[in-house]
Formats: sequence, structure tokens, C-alpha cells
Amino acid sequence: MKEFKTDVDIAQQATLLPIENIAAQLDLEKDDWEPYGRYKAKISIHTLDRLHDQADGNLILVTSINPTPAGEGKSTVTVGLGQAMNRIGKKTVIALREPSLGPNMGLKGGAAGGGYSQVVPMDDLNLHFTGDFHAITTANNTLSSIIDNHIYQGNDLNIDQRRIVWKRALDLNDRALRQIVVGLGGPFGGVPREDSFQITVASEIMAILCLATDMDDLKARLSRIVVAYTYDKTPVTVSDLNAQGALTLLLKDAIHPNLVQTLENTPALVHGGPFANIAHGCNSILATKLALKLGDYVVTEAGFGADLGAEKFLNIKSRVGHLSPKAVVIVATVRALKMHGGLQKNELDQGNLVALKHGMTNLQRHIETIQSFGLPVIVAINRFTADTDEEVHFINQWCKENNYPSALATVWADGGAGGEELARTVVDVINQGDAQFKPIYSLEESIETKLNKIVTQVYGGQGVSFSEKALKQIKEFNQCGWDKLPICVAKTQYSLSDDPSRLGRPKDFTIHVREFHASIGAGFLVALTGNIMTMPGLPKEPAALKMDILSDGTIKGLF
Amino acid sequence: MKEFKTDVDIAQQATLLPIENIAAQLDLEKDDWEPYGRYKAKISIHTLDRLHDQADGNLILVTSINPTPAGEGKSTVTVGLGQAMNRIGKKTVIALREPSLGPNMGLKGGAAGGGYSQVVPMDDLNLHFTGDFHAITTANNTLSSIIDNHIYQGNDLNIDQRRIVWKRALDLNDRALRQIVVGLGGPFGGVPREDSFQITVASEIMAILCLATDMDDLKARLSRIVVAYTYDKTPVTVSDLNAQGALTLLLKDAIHPNLVQTLENTPALVHGGPFANIAHGCNSILATKLALKLGDYVVTEAGFGADLGAEKFLNIKSRVGHLSPKAVVIVATVRALKMHGGLQKNELDQGNLVALKHGMTNLQRHIETIQSFGLPVIVAINRFTADTDEEVHFINQWCKENNYPSALATVWADGGAGGEELARTVVDVINQGDAQFKPIYSLEESIETKLNKIVTQVYGGQGVSFSEKALKQIKEFNQCGWDKLPICVAKTQYSLSDDPSRLGRPKDFTIHVREFHASIGAGFLVALTGNIMTMPGLPKEPAALKMDILSDGTIKGLF
Repeated sequence: MKEFKTDVDIAQQATLLPIENIAAQLDLEKDDWEPYGRYKAKISIHTLDRLHDQADGNLILVTSINPTPAGEGKSTVTVGLGQAMNRIGKKTVIALREPSLGPNMGLKGGAAGGGYSQVVPMDDLNLHFTGDFHAITTANNTLSSIIDNHIYQGNDLNIDQRRIVWKRALDLNDRALRQIVVGLGGPFGGVPREDSFQITVASEIMAILCLATDMDDLKARLSRIVVAYTYDKTPVTVSDLNAQGALTLLLKDAIHPNLVQTLENTPALVHGGPFANIAHGCNSILATKLALKLGDYVVTEAGFGADLGAEKFLNIKSRVGHLSPKAVVIVATVRALKMHGGLQKNELDQGNLVALKHGMTNLQRHIETIQSFGLPVIVAINRFTADTDEEVHFINQWCKENNYPSALATVWADGGAGGEELARTVVDVINQGDAQFKPIYSLEESIETKLNKIVTQVYGGQGVSFSEKALKQIKEFNQCGWDKLPICVAKTQYSLSDDPSRLGRPKDFTIHVREFHASIGAGFLVALTGNIMTMPGLPKEPAALKMDILSDGTIKGLF
Repeated sequence: MKEFKTDVDIAQQATLLPIENIAAQLDLEKDDWEPYGRYKAKISIHTLDRLHDQADGNLILVTSINPTPAGEGKSTVTVGLGQAMNRIGKKTVIALREPSLGPNMGLKGGAAGGGYSQVVPMDDLNLHFTGDFHAITTANNTLSSIIDNHIYQGNDLNIDQRRIVWKRALDLNDRALRQIVVGLGGPFGGVPREDSFQITVASEIMAILCLATDMDDLKARLSRIVVAYTYDKTPVTVSDLNAQGALTLLLKDAIHPNLVQTLENTPALVHGGPFANIAHGCNSILATKLALKLGDYVVTEAGFGADLGAEKFLNIKSRVGHLSPKAVVIVATVRALKMHGGLQKNELDQGNLVALKHGMTNLQRHIETIQSFGLPVIVAINRFTADTDEEVHFINQWCKENNYPSALATVWADGGAGGEELARTVVDVINQGDAQFKPIYSLEESIETKLNKIVTQVYGGQGVSFSEKALKQIKEFNQCGWDKLPICVAKTQYSLSDDPSRLGRPKDFTIHVREFHASIGAGFLVALTGNIMTMPGLPKEPAALKMDILSDGTIKGLF
């Protein structure tokens, strides 16, 4: 048995290749990329033009059952699968989201895989990386300052300062900024109004960066952001303020995807990171498209479980980016399935086939969802140390009986070697050529119909209900022509329903939409169910207080 | 006559060398530096260890008369002089501050020289550059979130939330954030209190980064920051919160100096940028020390006129960094001297020897100041197009009669070629070996004595007066042992006095200190005179609204 090492131990002991070697693996030319330090690079989006006529690789989406406190290891499997694909001789590129810095200061835990399936350099990834999030923060807050300044300087656009929907942003966990009053102190301090900060990953600009298909599209999307309403309730956009040029300029570097590597030197494009509740939760379209030009296979993931992440990946991102996935991997663990089957977190170390069997219903629901999009499914059983052989065997048998391809993955402990069976299964499924991807709703359908389809075909619920406010907003959106946009549901990730305590496969539920938010720049309508937190707080003992860096550069406590 | 080109035209048409060529010019080894794109790099501070035994080059400080709306062109002369030094065969490195992004969105105008004496790539320099300021912003606000969280989680340290002196920061011009209330919305939003945002260059962390002499010193300074006072009025520091490790970690890349080049491929270290009023206004000590190891000559500058910038460069930065300048260049222009002589801005295009003669008193005062530090002075006359030959001749004659070495500089129009006479004059002065640098006060002297010496020997005033509050603070500081720190005066840059309307050489004035701020981490006491703005606002027509970037990467409106 291996000596136990933390993620950061493993990462710091890894032998990284110079980033130019990784670029060379991908046949990138000199003008295609720029280094950011020794182990990071940005690949110009113009590389897409150069490779325009080259065929795309095969796109593989990794998603999961509903997350539980037991952890499902989706990113770890994504990285491990990418490493394994290369081991079996398939030229594969991984495409992931960038981690948010703020939450690292709160609870222990980075977001670039784990164990022997990590993206590196993990310290940079979990701190400032190549500055993309800081650029987005700056663009977000420059827009806020332009709005407040417009009002202060005479308010030609007749903005109602009680109806400013654009919020400020920081990449921090900062409870005290959730609800604030700005503009105090008399005329010297501007015009008083209520405001709030959200975490940068919740900024609409983050979603826009990830859905933009080129620089002009980025600017066009930024132009369309609705920042406020006038006193007569007409929307005020970024283009009304003429701020789209400056915002695009502030994102001139952030738009280019970042290239890094895994512990086994598999190339990884890590770019963008929108929330998976109030936004669509996937890395950028540009990074995914670029990865498809550079690799024969691309392994990517989407935030939270398949009900949120995969649904949005397929209905929003794939539609905008004209992406056509070839297969979907659903990650499940014995532990998480047992929680879905009714166990508490402290009961997971004992084998329990009854609970496991009950919990399989959650996996079953997500498999059906993916199939309803016309896509083949592979179940990845991400093995944890305490899992019994009987439990693992049970899942395998269940998959076999139901005719779902499946494979055991031990990528956390074994790196790519622990994912070779999974990799071969994925390749086999893709080679069968059964994928016939189709979004589950059409943009021409009404807001109500789109939501109903998501609730019934993805969540397995009975339908959708609306608050008075939401109904009023639907009318307004219909008048604005915004009803032709896709829907982005902001819902708890823990349950298929909108009640986080209902694990497994609840059926007798409806989803209640209390309010919409119009992300017109990003190009979707956010349907808010329950309370969605857009600015996390720090816990009693923040991880930050255990962090350190020694004079020789050794980092402590980041993970 | 040359065709007129804007700064950005010139910069975009320049032929930059790959940054590895610039690194090679400086004999940097492979492990000494890391690229950030094609034309930027970070030089590791550990290079200082490698070059420990190498002799230092000659340090040249560029300062100026009190700035006027006519402009004095100090950065342009600094860059032009560096270029000229290389042209006459002297291996020279330039050391400058990084520009702040926020103000670029307000009024037109970057901050990396001008005309044919610019540091490039100017667009990056004036936007996110290598992310140093974003790292400082993040560290600053992480500290704020830790303070508010500490109070929310039970306030073990007994922090009085009415006496939190640590402010949040953004690199923006944002009037509406000058005075705010945070923590609203009930327990979910923390504990309500007043707060404000300052611009990042005003953050004490910016000053700390620029005064730190290595990674451990950085951490030690961060530890000592006083963030608040308890209910019984004892200071609460970062080390009481145990946040110094995380803050240092957040600055792990920002601490390394940035390498870029000028339009003539002269190496430039551009690193850090503290305000020159509430902070000391110089680039980092680490960059200056590194430049001294890499070049035979180093040309650097300090913010505002000699009364603020040079005084702090000499009394604060040089003392902390054990720097010993060899010569000081004072930049003056005909136009600015005429404003000091009583003209309005719209009267400057006509020759006026009477006003010019009156204005010379301002230059005279600054020359005396530099001499009182034991340093030789060179006057650089930065020529503008409308200056008459008589006016230029007058200044030259005045310098000759007073035995002040001087030279005409046309570096804006001619680049380094326009600074060769200046360069030769500077080298001659240094070769005379007359520099005997000594700060004008000792740290052992009292707060009152230090301030009196600054006012009488640097500003030419009669003395200093204190408000009741300031007197009370002096007593408290004496008890804390903080009276042994140097003083950083926050004063208007436009006048030697604390009244911005008194140009020329006012004499019959005292300086009134209304309050102190204890920057214990940075290691100085800020004496506040008049109203010092630490968060700028946007003007009626912000420069941001004219900015754009086209899909081919062409940038518009940044300058």
C-alpha cells in the first residue's frame, strides 16, 4: 500500500514538463500561444481560425449523480480519464473550469482534481492563475462605477437607482458584502443606493466569457447586458452606456484559453468558471472548441450533477457552440449512492447493500436524462478505500443487467492507470456511433414549456409552478422578445427537486420558480428556485488562517 | 517636422524585442526569470542572492518641481534618460512604478512615459500587466473579509467595529464606494458597520510590497499591520488574526519585479506603485536593488515633486533599502515654471521671461532640498514645442550662474537621442563623486522634530502645527513605541505648502497636521494635511467610454 500523501504533497513532488513541450505535443505553432511562467500558457483564439478546416475530435462529457457530502470526485475522474485515454494511445485533451480563489480561503480544498489525477501547477490554479478572474472582476466593477457615475453626472438615461440589477463582484467569500449601501457621505460620495457584491463566478460577465464564440461576439454579448431599468421601467443596457468597448478591452487577455498539464503531462485547457446554479457551470466554449481541434478526444465536465450541469451543458453551451458530444460519463460512488439510499455521512464506512440499492434510483434518473438527449451513457464507479467488493460488484451487476456500459475507476489512487478500463469502455461506446444529440427543448417554445420539459424530462418531477412575480416577469419577457432564450435553472444541487433534503429519486414534486433574472448578455433567463447564495461566507475557522509560504517557496495549508 | 502621432500609435508601431533578448542583455540566467507573454517577464528575487557579491551600479533619482496642469514630463524624462544612457554606452536599467488601472478609465492618459520615450507594451502596463495590483487588491480584501468574519464568529479579539481602520480596496475610480455601510440584511449579512473602499495604490499592502526586502520581511511587515482597535483601544494586528501567511501567499508572485523594455529596447523594471501622498510613492525596493545589480546605472523616479517624492525616496525608501543615490535630476519645463511664476494655463503659449523668472524660485527651492540631503543636482529642461529659445536660454543661463549642472532634453520628440547631453552631464556629475547621502532626520528624533525638519528643510516653511486629535495621537504613538518610525506626509502635490493655490516658492507658511494614520506594517506614520482623496471618481465623460478593441486586436482610446 502506498504511503499517504496530501494533494499538495503529490503536486509539489510531480515532475512537470515545460509548457513549450505540452504546446509541442499539441502541434501548436509559435504564434499560437504565449507563456505565463514556466508551466502555464495562453493559446490565442485565432488558433481556431488557423485550424478551421481540421476535423473536430470526439467530445466526452463527464457528469455525476447529485452531489452529497460524501463527495463524488467528478473532476478527479475527468482528469484521470484524460490521463488514461492518453495511456491507451488516444490523443486526448482535457477541458476544465478554473477554480475560484475565494472559496479556497474558506474551506480546505482546491478544485483541480485530486490524488494522482490532478491538474498542475495546483497552487497557481487555486490562486491567481493567469488573471482571468481578476480581469472579469475588474470589468464587472468598472461597469458598476460607470453606472453610478452616470447617475451622479446627471442621469441622462433616467436610470431608477432602486432598479439597478447589476451588482458589484469580488472573488472572495465575504458575507459582509452581501447587502450594503453605497454612495453615502453627501454629494462627494455620489448617490446613495442599496447594492451588493457577489462572488466573481456569479458575475454575468463570467458566463458571457464562457459563451462567447469570438472577440466580436464577446463584445456583442457585453453590449446586451441589462444593468438597470428606467423610471418608466424600460431596460438599460451596457450599449446604452457605451461601455462595451472598455469591458471588452479589459477582457482582451482573459478571452484566450489557458493551457496547463496534468500530473501525467496530459494537456488541459482550463478556462472560465461560471456558477452552475445562476449560470451554466461549464468551461468556455472557446476552450472546448480549441480542445476539439487539438485532440482526437476531449474530456470535459459540467458543474454539480447531471440535472444542473449536464442539462445546461447540453441545452445551453452545446447549442450556442454547435457542439455535439459523443458520449456522457456519469460518475457515481458507493458512498454517495448509499447517502441517496438513506444513510448518514458517519454510516458510510460499513458495507450496506440495502442502502446502496435504494440509492441506485438517483443514478438511474440521470442515466435516463442523458438518454433523453440522444446520447450514450457510461457509468464510472469512482472507487473509495472503504468500498466493499460486494458493493462495487453490485453496481457493476446492476449496470450489466440494465445494459449500461460501466467501469471501475481508481484514478485518485492510481492516476491514469486506474482509468484505463473506463477509457476503453468510452472509446468502444463512441465507436458504436450511437450519439444523436438533440437539446430537449426548442428555443421557439414558451418559457413555461421549456421549464416544464426540464422539470419532467430531467428532474423527473411533475411540473413547474410560478410565483405572482415570476408570472409578471414572464409577461414582460414575452414583450421584450426574451422568451426565445434558453432557461438556466438556479436550483439546489443536492436534490433532483428544489428541496435539498430530498435525496434519491423523488417523484411527486413540482419546481416552484419564485423569480427570474434576465441574463440577456449571457443569453439565458435564470429561473430562481429556493434561496441561491451568490456570495459565500467564511466559516468559523477559515482555511486562510492555516496557509503559509516559506522563504524557499514551500506552500503550506492551501489544501 | 515629424508627422504627429499619439502615444498609442507610436507604441503600436514599435518593434519590441522578445523578452528573452532583454533578459540576455542583462546576463540573466534561465532560472532567474519567467516569461509573462512575449514581452513581459518576472525576475525572481532570488536573483539578488545569486548576485549578492556583485557591486551595485550608480543610482540616479529623477524628480521634479511641483507639478502643474502644464505637465512636467518626469516619467518621459526618466525613460528618455535611460535610453540616452545606453546610447552613450552606459549599461543602464530603468526602475519605475506600475501604473494604476483605475485612473485610466477616468481621464485620458497612461503612465509609462510619452512620445518616443515610453515603456512598452503600454496597453498591458496600463491594464492588468502581470497581475500584481490584482494580487494586492485580493490580499487587501481577504484581510477585510477575515476581520468581518472574526467579529461575526464571536469576536474573540474584542474588536470595536467602530474602530476598524483597515479599508477595502479596488483598482478603480469609484466615487460611490468612498463611504458605504456593509454587513446589512440581518445575521445572514454579518455585522453592520461603516466602511469604505480606497484605490489599490492607497492600500498599505501596496506600500509594504514596495518596502519589503525579501519574502520573510514581506510577511513580517504584513503581520504588523494595525487593522483595528479593541473596545479598550489596544491595537489589533494581522498577526493577532493569524492572517499573515495567507496574505503572503497571495503575494507570492507579485513580490517578483517585472521586466519590460522601452521603445529603444532599454530594460525597465516596473514594479509596485504606492501613492505619493498617503504612501511613499516609489517603485519597489526589490526592483531597485535588482536593477542596481543588473546595470552600471539605474534611473528611477519618485511620485509628484521633490517635496513629496524625493523627500520620501530619500528619508523612507533609501533608508529602509540601504540605497545611496549618486545624483538627482530635477525636471523642469518652461511652461510649468511660468505657471509657478503666476501665469494661467491658457497664457503659456506666449514667451514670457518675467513670469519664467518668478517661477524659477520653485526650482531653486527643490535644488536646495536635494543639496540638503548631500546629493548633487542636475536640472533637466524638458523642452515643449511652444517654448521660445529665449526662455530656454534663460533657464540655462540661470543654472550656469548658480553653478547648477543642467541640460536640455527633447526625449519626447527624439527619444534617447534627445537626452544624450543630459546623460553625459549626469555621468560627469557622478564621476565627480560628490554624493554624500544622508537622510535629513534621524529615526530617534521625536515625531514633532522629524516633521519640523521636513517642513523647514524641504518645504521651506516655518514649522508645523497640530490639531487636538493629532496631538492626542502623538501621545498614543509615543506609548506604542511608534514614534521611532519615519514620517510620510500626505500633502497637496501642487504647492510646497499645504494650500494647493500657493505656487512658486511660498515662505510664510506652517503646515497643519490634522490627523495621523499609523501604517505600522509599511513602517511609517502618515501625517495628513488637508483633504487627501484615496478613492478617485470618474469625470463627466470617462475615458472608458471611448475605449475599444477590434477583433484583430487593435486598441482604441486607451490614451
